[in-house]
Amino acid sequence: MRVLGVDPGLTRCGIGVVDGAPGRPLRMVAVGVVRTPAEETVDRRLVRIEEGIEAWLDEHRPEAVAVERVFAQHNVRTVMGTAQASAVAMLCAARRGLPVALHTPSEVKAAVTGSGRADKAQVGAMVTRILRLDAPPKPADAADALALAVCHIWRGAGNGRLAAAVAAHGRTAPRLPPGTRR
Amino acid sequence: MRVLGVDPGLTRCGIGVVDGAPGRPLRMVAVGVVRTPAEETVDRRLVRIEEGIEAWLDEHRPEAVAVERVFAQHNVRTVMGTAQASAVAMLCAARRGLPVALHTPSEVKAAVTGSGRADKAQVGAMVTRILRLDAPPKPADAADALALAVCHIWRGAGNGRLAAAVAAHGRTAPRLPPGTRR
Repeated sequence: MRVLGVDPGLTRCGIGVVDGAPGRPLRMVAVGVVRTPAEETVDRRLVRIEEGIEAWLDEHRPEAVAVERVFAQHNVRTVMGTAQASAVAMLCAARRGLPVALHTPSEVKAAVTGSGRADKAQVGAMVTRILRLDAPPKPADAADALALAVCHIWRGAGNGRLAAAVAAHGRTAPRLPPGTRR
Repeated sequence: MRVLGVDPGLTRCGIGVVDGAPGRPLRMVAVGVVRTPAEETVDRRLVRIEEGIEAWLDEHRPEAVAVERVFAQHNVRTVMGTAQASAVAMLCAARRGLPVALHTPSEVKAAVTGSGRADKAQVGAMVTRILRLDAPPKPADAADALALAVCHIWRGAGNGRLAAAVAAHGRTAPRLPPGTRR
């Protein structure tokens, strides 16, 4: 499966495209950044982000898009721009009928490093190793976008199995005998 | 001038269209709400908001779009959805080359009631009076969208005069004699 990861931001959106399946070696298809000039108005910058993401989707035709989930409590100064950029990424994907998944920063870190509290350098090092690159992708937003795509492919397997189990049994929790308390 | 105001929200986007000019009676052209179902994913809801706003822009052809400015510190629980919906509104307008203006809630309240701390009922009452309506528009998001459009028309005059002065003199502050301290 081919996944396009987006690390959203108004100044820089990291974009990373990864091919692969759980349990098989993953392959980096492309990585880069969509930048917008700080001197432009927010509405014009959102149009540039849309154009940039559309170009990536046109060129690489992913089967799913993974976007970092933005929380209101983090980085209050920049969170509005991040939320707005993430909205554009989700919109571009959903308009094409592509499945959109949101992963939290700690889910992504845990997926690629084993620790939800790993730092940027550790994430960059593991992305380099997992995708067998010569050097960590720069800037960090680009590496984070690849980590998001890797996370999605690896977690997707579990979600897929879970979804299949839910579809088969109609509920997420195992049935318990009547009268049993959880 | 015709202004489309947007009070952004993921569940309800208030939309109000007003015709007018400063110092002349204003006229409500249309008012309504774009709703999205809470049970859908955020990415699908953003597509519905885009479709809704595009339909309003197609039908009413405004010359400017006024969107409520979202702050990170307010309503932390819902602020992400509000930021994302506002991004879609700005994107739809900017893509058509329409000027986009952001006004804060207190600017809007001050413009229509004279007080930046007015409550919803007061805003609704003044919108009703200013636009000579039979009753306050419901829901409150719709009234707020009309208030945004009114605010934009009235403030736009001042901004227009300021912009003209800046264009004429090349700076916003008056020239002071050398050595003078502000």
